[in-house]
Amino acid sequence: MLSEVLLVSAPGKVILHGEHAVVHGKVALAVALNLRTFLRLQPHSNGKVDLSLPNIGIKRAWDVARLQSLDTSFLGEGKEEKPEQGDVTTPTPEQVEKLKEVAGLPDDCAVTKRLAVLAFLYLYLSICRKQRALPSLDIVVWSELPPGAGLGSSAAYSVSLAAALLTVCEEIPNPLKDGDCVNRWTKEDLELINKWAFQGERMIHGNPSGVDNAVSTWGGALRYHQGKISSLKRPPALQILLTNTKVPRNTRALVAGVRNRLLKFPEIVAPLLTSIDAISLECERVLGEMGEAPALEQYLVLEELIDMNQHHLNALGVGHASLDQLCQVTRAHGLHSKLTGAGGGGCGITLLKPGLEQPEVEATKQALTSCGFDCLETSIGAPGVSIHSATSLDSRVQQALGGL
Amino acid sequence: MLSEVLLVSAPGKVILHGEHAVVHGKVALAVALNLRTFLRLQPHSNGKVDLSLPNIGIKRAWDVARLQSLDTSFLGEGKEEKPEQGDVTTPTPEQVEKLKEVAGLPDDCAVTKRLAVLAFLYLYLSICRKQRALPSLDIVVWSELPPGAGLGSSAAYSVSLAAALLTVCEEIPNPLKDGDCVNRWTKEDLELINKWAFQGERMIHGNPSGVDNAVSTWGGALRYHQGKISSLKRPPALQILLTNTKVPRNTRALVAGVRNRLLKFPEIVAPLLTSIDAISLECERVLGEMGEAPALEQYLVLEELIDMNQHHLNALGVGHASLDQLCQVTRAHGLHSKLTGAGGGGCGITLLKPGLEQPEVEATKQALTSCGFDCLETSIGAPGVSIHSATSLDSRVQQALGGL
Repeated sequence: MLSEVLLVSAPGKVILHGEHAVVHGKVALAVALNLRTFLRLQPHSNGKVDLSLPNIGIKRAWDVARLQSLDTSFLGEGKEEKPEQGDVTTPTPEQVEKLKEVAGLPDDCAVTKRLAVLAFLYLYLSICRKQRALPSLDIVVWSELPPGAGLGSSAAYSVSLAAALLTVCEEIPNPLKDGDCVNRWTKEDLELINKWAFQGERMIHGNPSGVDNAVSTWGGALRYHQGKISSLKRPPALQILLTNTKVPRNTRALVAGVRNRLLKFPEIVAPLLTSIDAISLECERVLGEMGEAPALEQYLVLEELIDMNQHHLNALGVGHASLDQLCQVTRAHGLHSKLTGAGGGGCGITLLKPGLEQPEVEATKQALTSCGFDCLETSIGAPGVSIHSATSLDSRVQQALGGL
Repeated sequence: MLSEVLLVSAPGKVILHGEHAVVHGKVALAVALNLRTFLRLQPHSNGKVDLSLPNIGIKRAWDVARLQSLDTSFLGEGKEEKPEQGDVTTPTPEQVEKLKEVAGLPDDCAVTKRLAVLAFLYLYLSICRKQRALPSLDIVVWSELPPGAGLGSSAAYSVSLAAALLTVCEEIPNPLKDGDCVNRWTKEDLELINKWAFQGERMIHGNPSGVDNAVSTWGGALRYHQGKISSLKRPPALQILLTNTKVPRNTRALVAGVRNRLLKFPEIVAPLLTSIDAISLECERVLGEMGEAPALEQYLVLEELIDMNQHHLNALGVGHASLDQLCQVTRAHGLHSKLTGAGGGGCGITLLKPGLEQPEVEATKQALTSCGFDCLETSIGAPGVSIHSATSLDSRVQQALGGL
């Protein structure tokens, strides 16, 4: 058991290309979004586990002694032997039911809150049970990511929790050395973090694809194709505007709508999905070539791909008037945008070419804000889960985590 | 030689689906637009041929005697024998040069005017030369079609001229019987009209596809595929709004832009063209099924096809902000629109479902007009070239033709 404070961050994600097409076996490109979830883990000795999630108004504490008496009684249930170090177990429906009891949440607790608490308890109990005694910890998780906007906020939560818990339990070493501002874990340790984070995601989402936790763990850009996830080598970091139209959407209905359109017009929609696939592949190729010193020419190709895919997503029926407005406003400033994720509202991304004047960027943000949208300037291709020194975090983050 | 006044009309055309894709070997559907060109031909005996084109400010007269002395001197040039009745000859560059002399137009004459006069003289001299003497005629042509908007106004001009001249020369019989309000020629006669009209089109456009004159001749809906033109059986007449954004466009540059995009991104653009092809085929199928009593369901499919193709045309890069605005405005009234023709501005069509309340249609027209667009309520699938009784033409047309 480590005794120092750990400060961990993990990025969100956006789909650059391939949303919806991915459901029909095509390639998707997911990229790490430099809006991050920050976690402060502080071991203490008051016999409590404290969890504070200020974004969603969670502040809970559990007695370690009570948890201690409970954990093996159901997490080990049905297992013939204790899992080996590094083994990752999948939550069973029975475990979920027991966790609900342990959580002691009121019946009318909002789903988001309930799932966040259950995922925490599951990861805490599963990862820490190999300790002689369950540790007493104070954990605060705060995120720059809006929840439920398709930006992988739950994955960033699970990844940062898994990384901090595995590190505090010394299942993986703390990579932060004296004098480091920030550091990352080894490939093997990241693989373990990713596996546990995936379990957290399963607790929250039921049957996630694993893309969100992988992007949050590895950072950069990932290619997802028929269940296989691979990292792109040296993807560039690209500056973007991330705009949330705040129009609520129903992902399930949007996915079903595309499927129905494919069934109704197979000869029209199948080649459209093929065209989207080719956009993802072309984008992957260009990102691979951009390397350290991207050329303006390459940005112009990325813009053309963004435009074509936005039209394709509209043709699939997952556009929305708010997204049209977003594209129109940014085009009036010479910028190119597409929806990201499920569509039907939600978020859009706008590529910022190098050499743009800051006043022009500000004017675009202002114009988007005037439409009633939330607009943030950030980047994609961000680093994956990282560990930070206290002094390297900016004061806004320090304050959000309750002071360091 | 007939001696009665002939009143002929021919429709314009819009491309329903397949613009641009047709250049790359895909199917296009062209439909007759019920905005018509009207022609009044009155034989007289003053030894003059008078041509009046009020839309473009043409009012010219030629001495028949002078034309008589000229015609065989160059129209027969290089021909070993006089063409048989029904033969259609193609204008040679030499003939065009000689026609320019005959026309006697000022050097600074606008291209549109020059070409309209040359096409007239070519058709007049070629069709009438088989008469013992060239006839003295007074011809007025007036059109509801805006020129240069991609609506086939030149084809409607050539078709109505060819039909009237062939009829007055008794190359084909006048199908209008006593008591008829309107009538049409037989299939064989229409074929001859179409052939001559195509020559008029060649004079005006150099190397036309032949679609515009075919639609104006046959009416209804045509399928064009790799140079082959065929009529759809019993296409329904569909009510539409035809909106002219009045944004000027460069068809040649737009066609080149699509070709460049195909060369640059073959894997992306080729399936997109395949998808557009499938839209045209599906539309053809639905139009064929609509028959006499179209169901609302079928209109809804037509709307979906319109939406998808509009997005595809945007993905090809031939959209325009004015067309986006057109689509947005009509969508706000629950109506679906696409560009028609070259894109980059120009015209759009909006399908009017049966059962729409007239105030709603008026509100949409008003909203489009407020954008600075010209908007007309009309129909597609209109009858082809027709001959009318004087009393059956409405007073607006009678007045435009200078009184009947």
